[in-house]
Amino acid sequence: MPNLPSKSLEKAVEEIAKLPGIGKKTALRMALFILKEDELFAKDLATSIASLKLNVKYCKKCHNISDDELCGVCSNPSRDFSTLCIVENMSDVLAIESTGAYKGIYHVLNGVISPLQGITPMDLTIEHLIERVHSEDINEVIFALNASLDGDTTAFFIRQQLENITSLKVTNIARGIPVGGALEFADELTLGRSISERTSL
Amino acid sequence: MPNLPSKSLEKAVEEIAKLPGIGKKTALRMALFILKEDELFAKDLATSIASLKLNVKYCKKCHNISDDELCGVCSNPSRDFSTLCIVENMSDVLAIESTGAYKGIYHVLNGVISPLQGITPMDLTIEHLIERVHSEDINEVIFALNASLDGDTTAFFIRQQLENITSLKVTNIARGIPVGGALEFADELTLGRSISERTSL
Repeated sequence: MPNLPSKSLEKAVEEIAKLPGIGKKTALRMALFILKEDELFAKDLATSIASLKLNVKYCKKCHNISDDELCGVCSNPSRDFSTLCIVENMSDVLAIESTGAYKGIYHVLNGVISPLQGITPMDLTIEHLIERVHSEDINEVIFALNASLDGDTTAFFIRQQLENITSLKVTNIARGIPVGGALEFADELTLGRSISERTSL
Repeated sequence: MPNLPSKSLEKAVEEIAKLPGIGKKTALRMALFILKEDELFAKDLATSIASLKLNVKYCKKCHNISDDELCGVCSNPSRDFSTLCIVENMSDVLAIESTGAYKGIYHVLNGVISPLQGITPMDLTIEHLIERVHSEDINEVIFALNASLDGDTTAFFIRQQLENITSLKVTNIARGIPVGGALEFADELTLGRSISERTSL
């Protein structure tokens, strides 16, 4: 990275490079692009970033991003309010919503329990989740967490706290070979799980 | 791209996706990252982008980015002011400066002549360049433009206007096989040029 000829440019490159997946070279390319465009572009970009953090609210029920007190899912009367899907982040809600395959509601944990990163159950929305399952009319809880050690730990922790609700059905999203994926290229863990958890035709 | 649950998020993704090399998915990832970080990060990023366009000046001699009237190169008395290197963009200045191999000064054209994109010599800093070569004590002009049709046209146009200065040496940066590059993978044009423009050992 060469010495930049301007302090403002240096500062902008430094800030842009903090974004995920952006190195100093890409950040410099972006900064030079912003410089080349007209003033309105830089202003619009800056305003949209600043107002993002200021204006975005979180749904008071499911903790998903929302412009109002309740998000689009929680305020939609045609959703199935008896099925609750537990996800790690709001990006997971977007991913599941884009499939169109799910009609229930969500609960966003805002992370998973991770002793190594110092994330305890208190840092997440687990307490509110347990409260929701008790107070709302929920029949099924679906775990849609990433298949990592931390994800499994979190699911285990939550499951323990829900054990006393005998009528509750607890499920996990299916793991297996991706649709269109070739068997020979699947890792052993996934292939093994796709066999042990085979479904009847 | 799923429907986003917030107008502010949608707007931010739209603006970020205008940056070069950033698609909607990457923009969404960045926006969600900004939301996760503390408020100061979004504020700093927004301020640095806005002030980039407002605070950055251009060197009145070479048109490079600068915080002052003259850039770091033009105001450095140890540079060789008799050698002038013509480049397309400020990023080319950064690239050449990072080699440490050049001690002369620069002239940034801010683009190349491109009839297809409607860029005429009037849109560039060519007039000022000709004026500089006439008024400053310049012995050699080095063309460091990209080897494209537009780059060659621009070099040809500028050369024509400098023809009447008989004492001026006009050179082009060397084209050839990159250092460390394998001959068998070089394109024919580059390999051909590396032979016709071979240098004596």
